[in-house]
Amino acid sequence: MRVRHKPWAKDLIAQHPEWVITDPYDKKGHWHEIFANDHPIHVEVGTGKGQFLIEMAKTYPEINFIGIEMISDVLVMALQKAMETELSNLRFIRGDGNHVSDMFAEEEVGEIYLNFSDPWPKKRHAKRRLTHENFLKQYQDILKPDGRLIFKTDNQGLFEYSLTSLSHYGMVLDDVSLDLHNSGVTDNIMTEYEAKFSQKGQRIYRLIAHFKS
Amino acid sequence: MRVRHKPWAKDLIAQHPEWVITDPYDKKGHWHEIFANDHPIHVEVGTGKGQFLIEMAKTYPEINFIGIEMISDVLVMALQKAMETELSNLRFIRGDGNHVSDMFAEEEVGEIYLNFSDPWPKKRHAKRRLTHENFLKQYQDILKPDGRLIFKTDNQGLFEYSLTSLSHYGMVLDDVSLDLHNSGVTDNIMTEYEAKFSQKGQRIYRLIAHFKS
Repeated sequence: MRVRHKPWAKDLIAQHPEWVITDPYDKKGHWHEIFANDHPIHVEVGTGKGQFLIEMAKTYPEINFIGIEMISDVLVMALQKAMETELSNLRFIRGDGNHVSDMFAEEEVGEIYLNFSDPWPKKRHAKRRLTHENFLKQYQDILKPDGRLIFKTDNQGLFEYSLTSLSHYGMVLDDVSLDLHNSGVTDNIMTEYEAKFSQKGQRIYRLIAHFKS
Repeated sequence: MRVRHKPWAKDLIAQHPEWVITDPYDKKGHWHEIFANDHPIHVEVGTGKGQFLIEMAKTYPEINFIGIEMISDVLVMALQKAMETELSNLRFIRGDGNHVSDMFAEEEVGEIYLNFSDPWPKKRHAKRRLTHENFLKQYQDILKPDGRLIFKTDNQGLFEYSLTSLSHYGMVLDDVSLDLHNSGVTDNIMTEYEAKFSQKGQRIYRLIAHFKS
């Protein structure tokens, strides 16, 4: 995602520690304290402008949502949107999804969402794809035994890669949709990107999977 | 597939035991004797009018191909096409794919092809789908440890179902194509149905999978 550079982004983020956690490694194992409840914690890796997670937080008040985003110029847009709400079940992490298992303790997370992740189409960049086994290993570390990974994309190549990558890792596919918006699914919450691309008639792919215990 | 009834079909089949085996259970464990060589044996379940398997047999003379088809009125069309060739690495079975593990011995088969199988879209018919676990169990029985299942369809629902069914059974996906004819794959051999539907711009889905040993 390309966005304009915002020189003020880092300052605004720093001024709102109630929304954005910038030292997530210190919070490992302590997320329930931050939310002051024991509701399930769902994490989006690569939360972008935040629309998906904010809608999820509105729709499911009994679940705590945490969105991880590395790029301050992007994350600040999610922050601004969040500040217009009074959601208490939503936080962001400014940090690198590459280290997600340093941010959460074993079994601290109920679900992980990946939405329209960067496809990294070149083979030599395969390790950067969020469904590469190096990432799956981390998701497995932090997910509860019955936890799920929910992945949406419009990128055919990334979806094909992800199906084989998850399968080779030993994950089990619970549901696959090859055209989500024409599948009868009614509770799908869209990202900014998804709404735009779906309007153009582009197919959206989705899979739901779990790790074998 | 609907085809016209051919009162002469069964007679023609009976007259050509060199092409069509009608007592496949007696051949279990003895298929290499029929081909008089020890080349790998690849099986298509639901061979239809035979175009795919005949092209495969022409392209890969070092592999023995066996096509199973239950409906004589359909199988006879494959037979007539085969009779125009001198292929020695091709046979058909008139029989029910439901009993494929009674037709082949353990590890007698190198690859299994499913091409444009009946989608049986109603849930109560799921057991009839050729990627239902009852079938997978049989494929596992007869495939060599390194054997593969190769499945093509234009039916989105059947493909979605098959991905989850194989995954839940513990199969590993080696390759998935969500638009085979626009994927750069050059060695794909088409069925009659595939050629027709692909011309209409319909997507063809393909997966290649193996059983965990």
